[in-house]
Amino acid sequence: MVQDFLCSNLSAGADGRLLFAGQDTAELARQYGTPLYLMDEQRIRERCRTYVQAVKTAFGGRGRVLFASKAAAFKRMFAIMAEEGMCADVVSPGEIWTAARAGFPMERAWFHSSNKSDEDLAFAMEQGVGAIVVDSTEELFAVDRIAAEKGVQQAILLRLTPGIDPHTFEAVATGKVDSKFGFGIETGLAETVTQTALSLSHVSLVGFHSHVGSEVFDSDVFIRSAEIMLQYIALVKERYGYEAGLLDLGGGYGVRYLHSQPDIDLAANIAEVGAYIARRCRELGIEQPEIAFEPGRSIVADAGLTLYTVGMVKRIPGIVNYVSVDGGMTDNIRYALYQAPYTVLAAGKLNEEQDMRCTVVGRCCESGDIIQPDVELPASIRRGDLLAVCTTGAYNYSMASNYNRVPRPPVVMLNEGESYVAVRRESLDDLLALDE
Amino acid sequence: MVQDFLCSNLSAGADGRLLFAGQDTAELARQYGTPLYLMDEQRIRERCRTYVQAVKTAFGGRGRVLFASKAAAFKRMFAIMAEEGMCADVVSPGEIWTAARAGFPMERAWFHSSNKSDEDLAFAMEQGVGAIVVDSTEELFAVDRIAAEKGVQQAILLRLTPGIDPHTFEAVATGKVDSKFGFGIETGLAETVTQTALSLSHVSLVGFHSHVGSEVFDSDVFIRSAEIMLQYIALVKERYGYEAGLLDLGGGYGVRYLHSQPDIDLAANIAEVGAYIARRCRELGIEQPEIAFEPGRSIVADAGLTLYTVGMVKRIPGIVNYVSVDGGMTDNIRYALYQAPYTVLAAGKLNEEQDMRCTVVGRCCESGDIIQPDVELPASIRRGDLLAVCTTGAYNYSMASNYNRVPRPPVVMLNEGESYVAVRRESLDDLLALDE
Repeated sequence: MVQDFLCSNLSAGADGRLLFAGQDTAELARQYGTPLYLMDEQRIRERCRTYVQAVKTAFGGRGRVLFASKAAAFKRMFAIMAEEGMCADVVSPGEIWTAARAGFPMERAWFHSSNKSDEDLAFAMEQGVGAIVVDSTEELFAVDRIAAEKGVQQAILLRLTPGIDPHTFEAVATGKVDSKFGFGIETGLAETVTQTALSLSHVSLVGFHSHVGSEVFDSDVFIRSAEIMLQYIALVKERYGYEAGLLDLGGGYGVRYLHSQPDIDLAANIAEVGAYIARRCRELGIEQPEIAFEPGRSIVADAGLTLYTVGMVKRIPGIVNYVSVDGGMTDNIRYALYQAPYTVLAAGKLNEEQDMRCTVVGRCCESGDIIQPDVELPASIRRGDLLAVCTTGAYNYSMASNYNRVPRPPVVMLNEGESYVAVRRESLDDLLALDE
Repeated sequence: MVQDFLCSNLSAGADGRLLFAGQDTAELARQYGTPLYLMDEQRIRERCRTYVQAVKTAFGGRGRVLFASKAAAFKRMFAIMAEEGMCADVVSPGEIWTAARAGFPMERAWFHSSNKSDEDLAFAMEQGVGAIVVDSTEELFAVDRIAAEKGVQQAILLRLTPGIDPHTFEAVATGKVDSKFGFGIETGLAETVTQTALSLSHVSLVGFHSHVGSEVFDSDVFIRSAEIMLQYIALVKERYGYEAGLLDLGGGYGVRYLHSQPDIDLAANIAEVGAYIARRCRELGIEQPEIAFEPGRSIVADAGLTLYTVGMVKRIPGIVNYVSVDGGMTDNIRYALYQAPYTVLAAGKLNEEQDMRCTVVGRCCESGDIIQPDVELPASIRRGDLLAVCTTGAYNYSMASNYNRVPRPPVVMLNEGESYVAVRRESLDDLLALDE
């Protein structure tokens, strides 16, 4: 029996059926089909409010929260973010266009990405993004040149690499010295490029950005990063008379994919960072800059749940049991890519013993199409049963593919007892839309 | 200087510019933009003909070649396959629909996949697929039931697991006992399900299927697999009086991603398999079944090339150099997923010294967005230069995603000095097509 749930939006009905955001998953599966991405709108809003309030409190009203859109970028999500007073971190013309079409106030969107073409930069300026987070020397000069051509002054941040290893896994650890991102502080590149930025006439340097990695579970990483960045701000003030008005600490707070992972107290964590920064700014003799955070995963991950229908159960005695579902690496590539952990539930059989250890696999013709190994499910599980994979609100829909020519599932939002389609199910004809 | 090329469709112009299928890559990049998938139509056709002829010769006219569509599934590809007399291995309603809309003769398409829903099976029967390759007991009964409802007799193959480890990497080794695919021969499941299949009234068992893995470089794997399958066919004949008319050995021949990999002589390899099968059928006292092969990668991989534009070059002294391009894991996820090797060329600078060791990375906001580490490029490489990644015809377009909201590149076919769009470039508006 499953009695303990990862997140407060999960619960069990009397008949052992899984409820998500208070709604019956079996009924939702019937209405919308499977595979199905569900998202809990109130959970998204609650997380936005937690962040916005925590940042406001911790930094004396001088803070902002940008949603890292790449975690889940579609029109409805940008609309929710706009309503919640969030800013947005956008990483491509596609994200910019999605935000714009959703009516997101573009001055609240900052354009990130480690590689922006001249066309990307021109497009971002035309769409009126609030700032461009510059990631390379080539890009700095390109921004200045394109801004000059347009006769504007473009607000920029410089992305710096504080050289911290956040002790998370390789693929998402981006603030190390060995990184494609940003300008290294310890290598001296940051200082060179800061001087250059200050000397250019069509860029306006508003501050510095850093991002040390993903799935961080304590405030220490942000404090260590802030320490390096504040020292850098003090150094730049002393040497060049420029005092940064903004420090963006990036994102990266982890979420609970498993029961063994902690549930972070965001407000307390951010308050610790706030106290540290306030003290250090005084000690370093600098004005406290506005502080930005860029959460993505921790806003939307546990607001998401994926429902699948079981297609087959294959028992290989003494070796392994396979439970195969009607989705897989096409809608959730994170185990295949990172061996990412997930909690899987038999959505209609929570009141049975979870006594069969199995590997939950996808429908693709590929051995690596694994959703999760070592899952405990009831031995009665069989074709037609529903499985729920929890915490799939981040980097599932946004990384989805049409591999094996499988259509992408819809994203259905749950809100106060109602449900609605935020992204519709891809059809077989949609798959042919680009074919000549 | 680059003087040695992976495949005969690559060459250098006098000015050090890369030619693909005899055409100037710089000119193609200008005409179609980057990132850009190019495919050499004549190379695809040549590989089809090599297979069709080799199989015809090796099996006394009783053989067939199915294109494993998942390697590259779009309408134009199915049209080429139809013209070349190929059959097709399709793995989803999406692939079936694409084939059907391309005018592919559906009786030459066999429906694979490790997990087919009732709806998938009904759709496949309605579209008239030639056979269904049954992968689980649940599916066997579902086929029989749905065929009964439709009043038809459905041709099927049973997918068996010969229990061979092809010594390739985990994610693509699918014929082992520990596999989500098929029915194990050594576990006895194959025999049980064969009896069941023979007893059902709306399925017609035409033979057996096996697939031992991908990126196989010698005929030994197919011979070992054939041995097990032929012994199984003999056993079934002896015990149940059923003699299989068809043996599908699956696919898996490797291709050259690197110069260090061998160039397989397909005809010689298949001839070896043919001689072995002929001899063993005589020895086992069975009629030689029709033999099927299912190549995917080895038909299309080296017919493909991806062109990118460099956005930045980041030199971190003593550590690494990064060369960042305008695509990445969104159009080629194979390094991120499998650490797959690729050969990368400076498409406009083949006549310079390739003296800078670097990691070629993509544009996504993710440290794991690597196309290839340890690449040698000219030290002069810079923003605006073209890079070519070779051997990208298989599992690149078909696995592409919109991660970071990046549109998928077009697939442009090159044929006898001409070029045409087979799959058009995704637009920013296309990205919004499913958003409500």
